[in-house]
Amino acid sequence: MVKLVYCVCRKPGLSREAFVRYWGEVHGPIGARIPGLRRLVQSYALVVPGDRQPAGFDGMAELWFDDVAAVLAARRSPEWAASTADEANFVDPARSAFFLSEERQITP
Amino acid sequence: MVKLVYCVCRKPGLSREAFVRYWGEVHGPIGARIPGLRRLVQSYALVVPGDRQPAGFDGMAELWFDDVAAVLAARRSPEWAASTADEANFVDPARSAFFLSEERQITP
Repeated sequence: MVKLVYCVCRKPGLSREAFVRYWGEVHGPIGARIPGLRRLVQSYALVVPGDRQPAGFDGMAELWFDDVAAVLAARRSPEWAASTADEANFVDPARSAFFLSEERQITP
Repeated sequence: MVKLVYCVCRKPGLSREAFVRYWGEVHGPIGARIPGLRRLVQSYALVVPGDRQPAGFDGMAELWFDDVAAVLAARRSPEWAASTADEANFVDPARSAFFLSEERQITP
């Protein structure tokens, strides 16, 4: 299995609440239609009261596929194009990052 | 459950191979000793032949805890301090990012 990781910052002007709602309820189901996708998890950044605000991201999406070939095939699909087009509604591409990865379990 | 996400770039001068080896074999077991840690996964960035090199990270560590209180308690432990100190051996802090998050499963 390989995993695509998208670390995202929300579009300027979008509140955290609107971002979380749009990403989960509108974009999530669009992304879930990508062919070959085995698992999709979104992680929302939490603000810890009284804590130093981390210089990180507003969240992260993880998409698992069987292998690199499955990712390349998915990227040629209309479902992928639809998901990418929808990102313009909530993501700031200039402050986001992505990479393809391979997992290693450290704890059992 | 909450999840700490560390997106890391390797230290300048360290090869990808040396980074992967150190992170997995030396740092992983150090991080796994943090009290309250429920699960630890490392994800290594893959280079896809012929693909545009993503402007992302060399990898990501994910650490799951029961709740925010468990993270705050872990941060006060000597095991956390040891893990943080060891990061200097392979991580470039200026090009790394972290955040605390909450997961939402999109696919079943």
